Amino acid sequence: MRIDMTNLEDFIRGAAFLGTGGGGDPYMGRLMLQHQFQNGRTVNVLEPIELADDARVVAVLTMGAPTVINEKVPSGQATVAALRKMEQQLGCKFEAIMPIEAGGINGTLPLVVGAMTGLPVVDIDGMGRAFPELQMTTFNVAGLSSSPNIVADDKQSIAVVETARNIDAEWLCRSLCIRMGGECQMACYPMRGREAKDNGVLGTVSLSVEIGRVIRVARKEQGDATQALVDFFRGERIGREARVMFDGKIVDLRRETRHGFSVGRVLMESLDGAGGVMEIEFQNEFLLARRDGKPVAMVPDLICLLDRETAEPVTTENLKYGQRLKAVAVSVPPIMRTEQALRVFGPAGFHLDVDYTPLEQLDAGLR
Amino acid sequence: MRIDMTNLEDFIRGAAFLGTGGGGDPYMGRLMLQHQFQNGRTVNVLEPIELADDARVVAVLTMGAPTVINEKVPSGQATVAALRKMEQQLGCKFEAIMPIEAGGINGTLPLVVGAMTGLPVVDIDGMGRAFPELQMTTFNVAGLSSSPNIVADDKQSIAVVETARNIDAEWLCRSLCIRMGGECQMACYPMRGREAKDNGVLGTVSLSVEIGRVIRVARKEQGDATQALVDFFRGERIGREARVMFDGKIVDLRRETRHGFSVGRVLMESLDGAGGVMEIEFQNEFLLARRDGKPVAMVPDLICLLDRETAEPVTTENLKYGQRLKAVAVSVPPIMRTEQALRVFGPAGFHLDVDYTPLEQLDAGLR
Repeated sequence: MRIDMTNLEDFIRGAAFLGTGGGGDPYMGRLMLQHQFQNGRTVNVLEPIELADDARVVAVLTMGAPTVINEKVPSGQATVAALRKMEQQLGCKFEAIMPIEAGGINGTLPLVVGAMTGLPVVDIDGMGRAFPELQMTTFNVAGLSSSPNIVADDKQSIAVVETARNIDAEWLCRSLCIRMGGECQMACYPMRGREAKDNGVLGTVSLSVEIGRVIRVARKEQGDATQALVDFFRGERIGREARVMFDGKIVDLRRETRHGFSVGRVLMESLDGAGGVMEIEFQNEFLLARRDGKPVAMVPDLICLLDRETAEPVTTENLKYGQRLKAVAVSVPPIMRTEQALRVFGPAGFHLDVDYTPLEQLDAGLR
Repeated sequence: MRIDMTNLEDFIRGAAFLGTGGGGDPYMGRLMLQHQFQNGRTVNVLEPIELADDARVVAVLTMGAPTVINEKVPSGQATVAALRKMEQQLGCKFEAIMPIEAGGINGTLPLVVGAMTGLPVVDIDGMGRAFPELQMTTFNVAGLSSSPNIVADDKQSIAVVETARNIDAEWLCRSLCIRMGGECQMACYPMRGREAKDNGVLGTVSLSVEIGRVIRVARKEQGDATQALVDFFRGERIGREARVMFDGKIVDLRRETRHGFSVGRVLMESLDGAGGVMEIEFQNEFLLARRDGKPVAMVPDLICLLDRETAEPVTTENLKYGQRLKAVAVSVPPIMRTEQALRVFGPAGFHLDVDYTPLEQLDAGLR
């Protein structure tokens, strides 16, 4: 599979949808990759099956608050430096790289690094969506170590962080990230192809392209792009639960950059006559949606805010008072919902005071 | 030279004096080293001249707020882990270790590591006193890099931090230190014997032993131990300026653990009839002494607070309301007073709003 100028916009828009408010601004992500293509570079995306079992593969990403990353878009050079440092530490050459998550920037950056280095990007990641913390991956749930974690900035500072627990790596790398200005480039979770295929989320890049295409086609046909997306997810091939939870406008927004994260909550009032209010809490990503105080969707199920007219995904740092949005929820595959997975990135992983209830068992709200 | 049970107390007391309020609690330092001796271990201290020019040598230390270190005394194991990690990173074996500074714990810890590993400790360090920050060394002034900086805790987390500037290493390692609980073990400033001898402060361990002996002998002879110390420093062999600046008791004390440091100021009122007040600012170490608002001693010259009766050095975290103390100042050697050195650890290095004036050019206060 190729990502090139013909499907770049679809890919980025879909990646931003799966980013559930986080993973970075899709506009920035598009510029980053476009810049590579305009310089004549290309990137090869491997299907998971194309990755050899014994191939060395590693995740690359930007860590940081989206509010900061928007001001200081990664060039990829420090990301490549992190990758090379990882190779030096392990005494090996990687045969492929992978995203750690979906999202406007973190879904795109591995492709930028692929274009810069010539390494293929395999369509496997550790979240299948975006989460704010390093240990919130299916790799971690499966017991794979993120170490060594390489952290680099663009002032020639680079750190190698090794920890017994991946949550300690998050804790330590985040502190470096904050002192590097709220953003840093990382390489982590080095592993073999077999481990990635067995424990990762497969096909997030190709799913992103499909999501983007559904939105684009619906817009072109002047249909309801949000409804088209819901139908796409509910269709037989994908087979997930999906629903429009709310149709409203933002009447209150609290957001701050705290401990290196963009943290807050957004409050919406109904526009479609259904009444009521929806409140969504976020930490880089949307975590928990409540309608009139009652939970209607929660991590790890996807909560996405889309422009009411165009279904353009809106990231948490781009939320504004008065925006008219639809709130969409989509269920996640079973690998994300095991007891162990929920401990890591379910409500308990975020210290949210609710028990996890799958989306399909919650009151559907509007419909 | 040997440090053993016969001169341990002298050494520790002298190291605490040179620690100028920082470098760790001497009581803890004594217990650490005593524990090694009681287990039958010994440590060999090399004179600087005994270190081969091409020998590999590295500094080991505890980074952290003294208030934290007193609660969690380093065992030496994580320090050894940091040393071994440094060897692995550089692909070499060290032939000697050295202290980075004087002080109750950081003067002692290298000897503990020496006892644990069998490596000799060379009598060279980067401060000749104690300073709170990693870049505040004569090695840095001479342009030597502290990288790679190894940071380890006792929960199996270990980081390798490489930076272009040593001040960036301080900034990044401090953040790891804070998240490791306010204390971590480090190895840094790897170098060759020639570099250490040319750019370090020589003889701090042996000077510590002498200082401790002067205090002990004066106490035994029921003399004025503080005056004996001043006479010792002013004597022909040492040839430094030294003076008792103030004789008083603590009437006010502000101290907090901020950004990983123990920061504050202590205010004393005169007890000897000379009148006036003395205020001393500190950041782990005593930085600036003012008498009735007028500077009377400042970094890098030594400012030490000693028990009024016994001349026992008192560290900043052990200051208490009502303590009766004498404030002593001692000049530092020319290597610490060059223009470049003052930029790093003179008043400007601490953002103090005074221009550096050598102790001997300041009004002597009491005498």
